[in-house]
Amino acid sequence: MTTAPDTTPEELDSVLRRAAAAAPLLAALAPAERAGLLRAVADALDAAADELVPIAMEEAHYPEARCRGELGRTTFQLRFFADVLEEGSYLEAAVDPADPDWGTPRPDVRRLLVPLGPVVVFGASNFPFAFATAGGDTASALAAGCPVVVKAHPGHLRLARRTGEVVVDALAGAGAPEGSFALVEGVETGKQAVTHPLTRAVGFTGSIPGGRALFDLAASRPDPIPFYGELGSVNPVFVTRRAAAARADEILSGYAESATAGSGQFCTKPGVLFLPEDTKLEPLVEDFTGRTAAPLLNERVTEGFVRNLDSLSAHPATEILVQGRRSGEEWTPSLLRTDLDSLLENADVLLEECFGPATLVVTYADERRLVEAAGAFKGQLTVTVHGEEDDEIAPALLALGASLAGRVLWNGWPTGVAVTHAMTHGGPYPATTAPLHTSVGATALRRWLRPVTYQSVPQSLLPRELRDDNPLGVPRRVNGEAPSA
Amino acid sequence: MTTAPDTTPEELDSVLRRAAAAAPLLAALAPAERAGLLRAVADALDAAADELVPIAMEEAHYPEARCRGELGRTTFQLRFFADVLEEGSYLEAAVDPADPDWGTPRPDVRRLLVPLGPVVVFGASNFPFAFATAGGDTASALAAGCPVVVKAHPGHLRLARRTGEVVVDALAGAGAPEGSFALVEGVETGKQAVTHPLTRAVGFTGSIPGGRALFDLAASRPDPIPFYGELGSVNPVFVTRRAAAARADEILSGYAESATAGSGQFCTKPGVLFLPEDTKLEPLVEDFTGRTAAPLLNERVTEGFVRNLDSLSAHPATEILVQGRRSGEEWTPSLLRTDLDSLLENADVLLEECFGPATLVVTYADERRLVEAAGAFKGQLTVTVHGEEDDEIAPALLALGASLAGRVLWNGWPTGVAVTHAMTHGGPYPATTAPLHTSVGATALRRWLRPVTYQSVPQSLLPRELRDDNPLGVPRRVNGEAPSA
Repeated sequence: MTTAPDTTPEELDSVLRRAAAAAPLLAALAPAERAGLLRAVADALDAAADELVPIAMEEAHYPEARCRGELGRTTFQLRFFADVLEEGSYLEAAVDPADPDWGTPRPDVRRLLVPLGPVVVFGASNFPFAFATAGGDTASALAAGCPVVVKAHPGHLRLARRTGEVVVDALAGAGAPEGSFALVEGVETGKQAVTHPLTRAVGFTGSIPGGRALFDLAASRPDPIPFYGELGSVNPVFVTRRAAAARADEILSGYAESATAGSGQFCTKPGVLFLPEDTKLEPLVEDFTGRTAAPLLNERVTEGFVRNLDSLSAHPATEILVQGRRSGEEWTPSLLRTDLDSLLENADVLLEECFGPATLVVTYADERRLVEAAGAFKGQLTVTVHGEEDDEIAPALLALGASLAGRVLWNGWPTGVAVTHAMTHGGPYPATTAPLHTSVGATALRRWLRPVTYQSVPQSLLPRELRDDNPLGVPRRVNGEAPSA
Repeated sequence: MTTAPDTTPEELDSVLRRAAAAAPLLAALAPAERAGLLRAVADALDAAADELVPIAMEEAHYPEARCRGELGRTTFQLRFFADVLEEGSYLEAAVDPADPDWGTPRPDVRRLLVPLGPVVVFGASNFPFAFATAGGDTASALAAGCPVVVKAHPGHLRLARRTGEVVVDALAGAGAPEGSFALVEGVETGKQAVTHPLTRAVGFTGSIPGGRALFDLAASRPDPIPFYGELGSVNPVFVTRRAAAARADEILSGYAESATAGSGQFCTKPGVLFLPEDTKLEPLVEDFTGRTAAPLLNERVTEGFVRNLDSLSAHPATEILVQGRRSGEEWTPSLLRTDLDSLLENADVLLEECFGPATLVVTYADERRLVEAAGAFKGQLTVTVHGEEDDEIAPALLALGASLAGRVLWNGWPTGVAVTHAMTHGGPYPATTAPLHTSVGATALRRWLRPVTYQSVPQSLLPRELRDDNPLGVPRRVNGEAPSA
């Protein structure tokens, strides 16, 4: 790990002042102009790939293909938000002309979403590109028109710095206001950034204890601010009896692939697999046993993983099916087993997220009790059901999934989160601290926007998006009718 | 005030268990079916007007016309949300079919907003109908599909109880799940309701200290939940030099009307009026002096008002233009004055909300310094500008207004909040604890909804709103294109 002095409180203050000064300028750009900024950043990152990827490989210990793929996802995401800006629905523009016959006095009122102001972003350890310096939080906040201050992740500090330079240069070259983006460093700096008076919102991806501590700081401010934290999830997978009978091998090999991808260091890793007790687990055991060792992200992740795996392994309710092997910094995946009753009795321990290459199989005798099992989970990013379409229990499991998680999958795997309009990467606590929102997909922008209504404001003084002639061609809801441009 | 034993913790627990049991049933109703429930409640309240209005008059000390008007607003709002449900855009349904050529792996993903679960509502003292038992928070939460537990306001307990009975009966008669609505009583009960494990969100309208205490409870839960508090606002009004020159009398009389309406007991009362220092204040002084006395809501409001008015009056930076007279429980309005420099030096005291019949005039010499003045305010529900369309300072004042408040008005008055699609009744802290949201207007529903994405779920197992044949005719964004039904 690279070490350097932390950003000082004075430097942080200066960074946030510049961000606050940039805020109205960035907000005043037309959505299409901000789209240009995002595309410039994407182009610059793509152009710097050969420089950035080796740093990511070295710092995050990921293979090259993974790093290149993730960088591609990152620049795709920047360009996707650019498209979202140009389409314009994200502004939720609405025009209600004065109406003397309305049920309440109704002058002319027009609504628009406007940016919150400076946003502080804490990137994730496990996505050095896509959920970090120029990742989803940064891209969506800039898209929304909010200046961004990134707290660099200590696990990939050199990459954060170099990525930050590429972003700053690209924004400057494309004409963004000075102060639209900055990088700061240090744990204390991060806390100070959350409580700084000029900070208007925070995006965070990381652990439950770290995220909760920062959430508490945000909530305890004299003026509390929104804190969008994505904290932890075990992403249960329920396999019905008939699905297991029909295609156990396919399900088990798919599970092994998803659960061990990236050394199990995905927030959407399927960490708990429910199977009928008569399912032959040999193929899964063989699969896990045969997997090659791979390094974890960094020492801190390793420490947490060892602690959680030890706690799971030592628990009287679990049986170790495959004992992962450590060789230097590299690990092969571990597989544990328990049964449904033991899980329900020890949910607090057994359903703790074990970030890294270890997962838990839960065998059940009575399929109907899967509903009970689902009820034992806290908020999740994902819930997956493997079933047959006419399985009696399928509707109840999907409904429970929707009550627990932001994404419910059928006969698929939760790793790999599509960047689309309809995606949700979020969920009730502790999956996130803000269940109304998503950090992936078009609506991730909404986290950084708030509504303002203009009442009886003359045409010449209205924001362009709300003028009668709609010069920017923004889709608008007029008189409550579905939007049109 | 009526007194009775508080709801016990056991009773509260039972109420919330019934609410949680009702939640999936209420959520499973089609939007149009929930619209029927809201209309049934509206009809029942209208039918009970002759019984409810006298109780409101007695408890809130409002004249009959005000009470009847407010009840009309309340039932209009219920029917408005019913229309919003039937239109269906509020679901934000989105369908992204699988696309092998997309920039990230993209299976079929479909998004929908789903209700959060049981909501606890704290009504306002000053709107015994429209922001209370069957008011905006209750109406929008029920519309969203969330069971509601109302904590009765002690200032109108009898009305709360009777209104609650009307709501319960109407819901039962219309076939709502048992437990969809309940009323509880007591200060401690309110706190317990905020921290109860089954509560999923809170709506609150009231004072800054009370709201902040409950916000802190919600944020300190093992699983923090959304807390939508509308707390306090002084709603500044900026009158430009040219506007004052053109029509000072009209502005002053409009101001007096808005600032003294309902004895100044509106959250949108324009509490601070900026005028050029050469404006003749005599008409305003005469107007205030000539107003008849009216009672305040209750003893607690009276105590707070006296404390704040004393603090303002005794402050060396203020001058009393009109000293309000108390006669028994009735008050005439007070008018105070300061200048811009004094205001900026003493903003902490002079910009405290004084809930009741008192307002502050701030005279200025240099119009350009209004921008500086606007910057001294905390978050507001509204900011109003009275100007001429080509006033040089108008764009800056409106922009500052938008940065401070959820609603910006031009040549109008902030009291009277239209219930429409484009309305925002919200703003940055301390106007509210949740700047992304509004408590009035169609989008008030969004506070009680969270997104869920269904990935690769077969047609027969998808929620109706997301099936290919769209049996409910819900507007949907398909492939990112603007919605159509």
